[in-house]
Amino acid sequence: MSLLIVGSVALDTVETPFGRVQDALGGSAVYISVCASYFTAPVRLVGVVGGDFAKEHISFLESRHVDLDVLQTVEGGKTFRWGGKYHYDLNVRDTLFTSLNVFEKFDPKIPEAYRVSGYVCLGNIDPTLQLQVLGQLNKPRLVVGDTMNYWIETKPNELFKTMKHMDVLIINDSEARLLTQEPNLIKAAKQIIGMGPQAVIIKKGEHGAMLVTSDTIFSAPAFPLENIFDPTGAGDSFAGGFIGWLARTEDLSPDNLKRAVIYGSTLASFCVEKFSVDGLRDLSYLKIHDRFRSFMELSRFDEK
Amino acid sequence: MSLLIVGSVALDTVETPFGRVQDALGGSAVYISVCASYFTAPVRLVGVVGGDFAKEHISFLESRHVDLDVLQTVEGGKTFRWGGKYHYDLNVRDTLFTSLNVFEKFDPKIPEAYRVSGYVCLGNIDPTLQLQVLGQLNKPRLVVGDTMNYWIETKPNELFKTMKHMDVLIINDSEARLLTQEPNLIKAAKQIIGMGPQAVIIKKGEHGAMLVTSDTIFSAPAFPLENIFDPTGAGDSFAGGFIGWLARTEDLSPDNLKRAVIYGSTLASFCVEKFSVDGLRDLSYLKIHDRFRSFMELSRFDEK
Repeated sequence: MSLLIVGSVALDTVETPFGRVQDALGGSAVYISVCASYFTAPVRLVGVVGGDFAKEHISFLESRHVDLDVLQTVEGGKTFRWGGKYHYDLNVRDTLFTSLNVFEKFDPKIPEAYRVSGYVCLGNIDPTLQLQVLGQLNKPRLVVGDTMNYWIETKPNELFKTMKHMDVLIINDSEARLLTQEPNLIKAAKQIIGMGPQAVIIKKGEHGAMLVTSDTIFSAPAFPLENIFDPTGAGDSFAGGFIGWLARTEDLSPDNLKRAVIYGSTLASFCVEKFSVDGLRDLSYLKIHDRFRSFMELSRFDEK
Repeated sequence: MSLLIVGSVALDTVETPFGRVQDALGGSAVYISVCASYFTAPVRLVGVVGGDFAKEHISFLESRHVDLDVLQTVEGGKTFRWGGKYHYDLNVRDTLFTSLNVFEKFDPKIPEAYRVSGYVCLGNIDPTLQLQVLGQLNKPRLVVGDTMNYWIETKPNELFKTMKHMDVLIINDSEARLLTQEPNLIKAAKQIIGMGPQAVIIKKGEHGAMLVTSDTIFSAPAFPLENIFDPTGAGDSFAGGFIGWLARTEDLSPDNLKRAVIYGSTLASFCVEKFSVDGLRDLSYLKIHDRFRSFMELSRFDEK
């Protein structure tokens, strides 16, 4: 079923103990779209870039069959840029700079033809923009949203308003604690369910992810990687794999949500193995399914 | 099969955001023995207490069928005491005091009759004492050992020597990183396997535990508890459930090691629900098995 993705399209400058890239393709909408494109079509990306956005990035997204009809280009403007540095243990990162550029005046418009989108993923951007997109859509079947500490701290009321329209919120553990002021993650998740979403996924980095609904808790492991080169985009890749699988299967049962969490974890694991989107360029459904099966091996046990 | 446990017997003074206990029953050998006692018999506790060790503690251990024949009592001596304080998020604790008392001159002696012990668990004590116990035993079938940052920092060589005789090392994530100087836990686990043990279990607190052997990785979730009152003894309870199950089943296959990890996680989850050993007093095999099944529910998923 058709999938609409809104979020940032960025040029990232990232330094990790294993290397550095400058102006590499990034942004939440890019990671989500590329990951979802392995599962379903059409995947429509709503975003904005400047005149400096390289043709090769457009070509790559097109090669992944991402529909760019609603990607705005501001000629003469500069693309959103983010710079960050990861430390030795990769769990800590410093944001070195954020230049909103064309994103500052981004006014997402959804053409009439795209307003019927069954599945919608709101990447991590200003909750006001997320809501503005939702307001233009015609009863989506599933709305998955992401956010971050910056919005929780600076626009809590806007975020609470947008959350009321989300079916699934994807958030990391420290953000869940910040949002609810509750250190226990199970209690935090239940509080979030009281705020609108019917399900919440708490991402815990190297410790996996947890899906909580009013009557289920599902704990997914992280894939045991010995070499993590660049954690940038892991959370967005998770969201892309998650909603991609749901849009493909059109099945929102608890069992299928669990599978979607594992597909999300699978895409996140491929993402962090290389810089930028490089770990996501040459995947195949078969390769993805193989790793899904490795996740099964990793967590399966039985009774004697 | 018979199980020999060596470790501390302590009186703990613990403060958490939810309350405080003074001189409560604790110590690694106590938690391990009580937990293992739900699976197998005989469970023999090797340790030392002072004349101040209350009769009620002895009675409780006896009610759990823990064999105390090798528990030394130093009349006129004081029992080992530990004091700690947990902070709001329960992941951080401060040691307020450690009074070794009778433990300072502890010289574990294993009587002839107990030297044939199939299963052995070395609780977290000085690695020299651990080795001294092992040296008196007659070819145990399985040696499981625990340690902590204090021994890694102060007696690394003694620890390395003792580790050569362990089949399974149980250690937490920060200790694994400290022991190997390797931030990546998978790489750290593989390094540890090169040091002697054939398997290593890395405990990650609220994030579960990971079993690594030369050819398997198994990731176990933590039980999602909304109310954790006192984390003291969780790691020892894990060890007790783990080795208790193995001693009961006498099956060291990879599949059974995974079950043992889940039984360990199960006992740890009961432990933290109350202060001291209170969460472990009134369990039953049925209650334990029920929670084992909840762990299955928690982590199980299938292919479409």
